[in-house]
Amino acid sequence: MSITVVGSVALDTIETLFGKMERGLGGAAMHFSVAASFFTDINLIGVVGGDFPQEHIDFMKKRNIDLTGLQVEMEGKTFHWIGRYDEDVNSAITLETHLNVFETFKPVVPDKYKNPDFLFLANIHPDLQLHVIANAGKPKMIAMDTMNLWIDITKDILKKVIQKVDLVCINDQEVKMLTGNNNLVCGAREIQNMGPKTVIVKRGEYGAVLFHEEKIFAAPALPIEEVKDPTGAGDTFAGGMMGYLDQCPEVTFDHLKTAIICGSVMASFNVEEFGCNRLRKLTKDDISKRFADFQALGQFDSMSL
Amino acid sequence: MSITVVGSVALDTIETLFGKMERGLGGAAMHFSVAASFFTDINLIGVVGGDFPQEHIDFMKKRNIDLTGLQVEMEGKTFHWIGRYDEDVNSAITLETHLNVFETFKPVVPDKYKNPDFLFLANIHPDLQLHVIANAGKPKMIAMDTMNLWIDITKDILKKVIQKVDLVCINDQEVKMLTGNNNLVCGAREIQNMGPKTVIVKRGEYGAVLFHEEKIFAAPALPIEEVKDPTGAGDTFAGGMMGYLDQCPEVTFDHLKTAIICGSVMASFNVEEFGCNRLRKLTKDDISKRFADFQALGQFDSMSL
Repeated sequence: MSITVVGSVALDTIETLFGKMERGLGGAAMHFSVAASFFTDINLIGVVGGDFPQEHIDFMKKRNIDLTGLQVEMEGKTFHWIGRYDEDVNSAITLETHLNVFETFKPVVPDKYKNPDFLFLANIHPDLQLHVIANAGKPKMIAMDTMNLWIDITKDILKKVIQKVDLVCINDQEVKMLTGNNNLVCGAREIQNMGPKTVIVKRGEYGAVLFHEEKIFAAPALPIEEVKDPTGAGDTFAGGMMGYLDQCPEVTFDHLKTAIICGSVMASFNVEEFGCNRLRKLTKDDISKRFADFQALGQFDSMSL
Repeated sequence: MSITVVGSVALDTIETLFGKMERGLGGAAMHFSVAASFFTDINLIGVVGGDFPQEHIDFMKKRNIDLTGLQVEMEGKTFHWIGRYDEDVNSAITLETHLNVFETFKPVVPDKYKNPDFLFLANIHPDLQLHVIANAGKPKMIAMDTMNLWIDITKDILKKVIQKVDLVCINDQEVKMLTGNNNLVCGAREIQNMGPKTVIVKRGEYGAVLFHEEKIFAAPALPIEEVKDPTGAGDTFAGGMMGYLDQCPEVTFDHLKTAIICGSVMASFNVEEFGCNRLRKLTKDDISKRFADFQALGQFDSMSL
């Protein structure tokens, strides 16, 4: 049981209506790894600069995340994103993006990371995703995420990545951008037709929809009163989902459904505090209780006419 | 078992990517009544002109909808809406609105309609909703719908209506407009604090969320490939929901949850064809099968950590 993940590890400075976090632990691969680490073993491929705080390294080690693949460029600075959310928590307002060492990042897959159960390609340039696929040996399953930027400027290369993976995790706006189709079902089916057997569409506060072969499953999101910081919710979702799936004997529709609820559970925790602060103190008992909340949330009786 | 409903009965001319319907049967109260008639007895209060086709009267009678409260102004014309949907089925484009006899509509509650189990105030001017409440005797439960127009121009009167009802059926955009709160949970709680014990928030293709006392339930919408005509989906939802509820011995959280699925089932059928054409040929067996689809759609296994 192990997942090899590649993507960004960052420092995030975030302001929302609920407060501010300065240079907190962020990045897609980091959010994914922390969430998945509650379920399985994680091998992380990424890059940070010499300014990356030791406490963050200590935290990731404490969560049993293997950091052999984390390059540290002592002379460089860590990717730093500065952003804000106003009333609408669905729209991040980017104030500054300092790619720093992430701009020239060339992922290296350590030998011990090769042939993992699952390979997860978090949101990075599709060229790098292809490079990692070519160097990761033979994973049992390859899954990926992406973002609007790559659909916009490198759609053709992105499509090559999609052809090579088994599972695509993508949000609803990106489905429309990628396929030009406004209908969720038609758009997801179009992505399946590019190759992947499984497409999971993230819809933020509306939950997620799973398309696996010809079957469909709709997962609700937990209605939350205070979204303190939505950053990384999608990556946390993917981490919980893939982490649970890695525990399962095989990737079936039934296991995928439960995995999506696990992802939703982890995302629902993540937005409760800044960065990954909520997950720092999360227990397995918390996860089980929240899972039960999700069971109750969508539960209803039969009817007769 | 009976529901008294007041609202618009109209002729709709609608064009979508899938075709066109000329002067088809439409209107909020009509969509509500047809959907609810699969579950209970309906008393309809509305107005039409002398041009209203006999075939529409015959259809409503065939569905056992009582038309004692339907005023026919022989010298006037029926409310006629002309609209279009492009790619985005969530946004109706109004081309022409001819209120005709609906402009001066003064609802009259026939004696036999008074003291119904349920009174449903479909989307009409809040003044008329208040008038009907004052003249309907003592219903066991009063429920209402509204629209952005009334929130915009008659918010104070609308709030008076809300104070007098037990259940509010409203869409997510209207919750934001009415309360100024962008958060769904906080907005719904605010409406509950105005008086109603129950608030049902319709989210179109994302389903619906029920707030009953302090409890929450999230219902998915069925992902649909071809939405031929979304007109009246919300009214059909309300009709299926209230119709089922009227069959129940009392209004509990559990019955409300099943009722919302019934509403979602009816709405999922309604969008499959223009106007209420799909419901013309719908059978109880169709409804039961679609209900089972909804059960499967959100069903998932337990997990252990």
